[in-house]
Amino acid sequence: MTVETPTRYGVAKPDEMAGLSGLEAMQAMIEGRLPAPPIAKTLGFLIVEVEEGRAVFEGHPTPDLLNPAGTVHGGWALTLVDSATACAAHSLLPPGKAQTTVETKANFTRPILPDGRPIRCEARVVGQGRQIITAESHITNADGKIVAHGTSTLMVIDLTKPR
Amino acid sequence: MTVETPTRYGVAKPDEMAGLSGLEAMQAMIEGRLPAPPIAKTLGFLIVEVEEGRAVFEGHPTPDLLNPAGTVHGGWALTLVDSATACAAHSLLPPGKAQTTVETKANFTRPILPDGRPIRCEARVVGQGRQIITAESHITNADGKIVAHGTSTLMVIDLTKPR
Amino acid sequence: MTVETPTRYGVAKPDEMAGLSGLEAMQAMIEGRLPAPPIAKTLGFLIVEVEEGRAVFEGHPTPDLLNPAGTVHGGWALTLVDSATACAAHSLLPPGKAQTTVETKANFTRPILPDGRPIRCEARVVGQGRQIITAESHITNADGKIVAHGTSTLMVIDLTKPR
Amino acid sequence: MTVETPTRYGVAKPDEMAGLSGLEAMQAMIEGRLPAPPIAKTLGFLIVEVEEGRAVFEGHPTPDLLNPAGTVHGGWALTLVDSATACAAHSLLPPGKAQTTVETKANFTRPILPDGRPIRCEARVVGQGRQIITAESHITNADGKIVAHGTSTLMVIDLTKPR
Repeated sequence: MTVETPTRYGVAKPDEMAGLSGLEAMQAMIEGRLPAPPIAKTLGFLIVEVEEGRAVFEGHPTPDLLNPAGTVHGGWALTLVDSATACAAHSLLPPGKAQTTVETKANFTRPILPDGRPIRCEARVVGQGRQIITAESHITNADGKIVAHGTSTLMVIDLTKPR
Repeated sequence: MTVETPTRYGVAKPDEMAGLSGLEAMQAMIEGRLPAPPIAKTLGFLIVEVEEGRAVFEGHPTPDLLNPAGTVHGGWALTLVDSATACAAHSLLPPGKAQTTVETKANFTRPILPDGRPIRCEARVVGQGRQIITAESHITNADGKIVAHGTSTLMVIDLTKPR
Repeated sequence: MTVETPTRYGVAKPDEMAGLSGLEAMQAMIEGRLPAPPIAKTLGFLIVEVEEGRAVFEGHPTPDLLNPAGTVHGGWALTLVDSATACAAHSLLPPGKAQTTVETKANFTRPILPDGRPIRCEARVVGQGRQIITAESHITNADGKIVAHGTSTLMVIDLTKPR
Repeated sequence: MTVETPTRYGVAKPDEMAGLSGLEAMQAMIEGRLPAPPIAKTLGFLIVEVEEGRAVFEGHPTPDLLNPAGTVHGGWALTLVDSATACAAHSLLPPGKAQTTVETKANFTRPILPDGRPIRCEARVVGQGRQIITAESHITNADGKIVAHGTSTLMVIDLTKPR
């Protein structure tokens, strides 16, 4: 799957997000009505699907991401896990709430190569508390093999209260 | 601290590394005799110190790394932890051995901002087995506050054996 | 589900295991032909199902497991995750191979109470390499709610080679 | 070091804890004025030192803790990490606050044997936020070798507010 709309990159202003649920904000990002974040351009990935408790990212790794061993740096997979789990959690939040990642962990099970084929990262919420949300994520290559997988712990933030 | 030598980016060829211990290879990278990996250019960080069982990275986050909340994406800190722990482990390996990261985990304790000031990531080996090495890492901002910390599990690879 | 056979506890002797695949050894444990390990008696849990790449444990937490807050200690859930993921990995090993846990991580999503009702922990292998196996695990209470979930990284050991 | 006072086991009543800071409560536990939790008896460990941001546990593993491989189950080390990191975090809390563990992770670097010699687990707080505290922990055997190490993420709870 590919995003057909031309993607804008940037950080949305608070008033662009006001009144949107997490799910609505991410749908707006997929449809190009809200910008994708700068990191998505730098690292070559985008959110491509979102529903309640689930988010999917797609990335196209390039040679700019190589580690000293000549494979895609594990940090790229970690960033995908971090992004997809955060969006899966965010999809469950009403207007006025946000989330921040407390911790992320991933295992690397196969090398990721910049071979021109897409990498897909799917995340699902596992635990949903009032303050803490947890999510799992699997990253698969174009052959459907799992190349990495991980989890994140997210904390819910109330944007309507002073912090 | 800043690396004064002009940095080359790329993936070293096997014969550039042949006969070098892990520590020697990373010293050569710091001194510009071996290239820094492409990911280091893309994400704005470099290894700046290495000794047996310890490695230090320095990064200068830019607005290209921002997440939708307008702070530096957690994936950047994860990549630093992943890199610094791998180098701390690599510093203990003789010629003919390499390592690959099995898993990485990090906690995010304070926002990282692209404020022009450097971020420092220091990693130390904690457990050194014949096949598995583990390392811890702390990331601090220019005020000396810990902004993230994590660990990695690395597997030692014998480059002289067919895999 | 309950194990109907009277359970013996102890550590099986190497010759009791000789020639058994991982799956066969765990089936023998479930059927009472091999002893369950002492920790299973101390902490009140048993393996109840196993198939290739999947293992299920059932536990009955008692007041002996309480932490200072009066709920079941998180270490009990961690031990279940550790056990179930190790058995899921072990189920894939041929005779002459064993595994050892490299690291385990779990999130705690709901309190576990010693209310006389069983707790179920199901683990599945996610990544199977020649040297490293990874597995995920979900722990559910009698209401089917997820109370904890986690992952482990396991290393395969060749018992036929000197270590 | 050994705790000389006879240890009571149980869960302290809320009014036994009322008005005590986290540090005071744990000092009372070390001195036998508050009970140690039941899990400490079941698994053979006790808190032996506490100060602001740091806690030390000592354990004496027995054959009741063995896994199928005949070594002490990794869950025992995980429970020590979980306990010591929680106490390190708890030592920073004023009266009226408590903490709950969100997640725990540990690496196992050497086998733990029930050889009659003590195992020591020392934890230190790394990140202290208003809502989240993180801590690292190292477990050493009687020879001073690190046998396991890990981290926990703790969430601060306000006992004076309805939850």
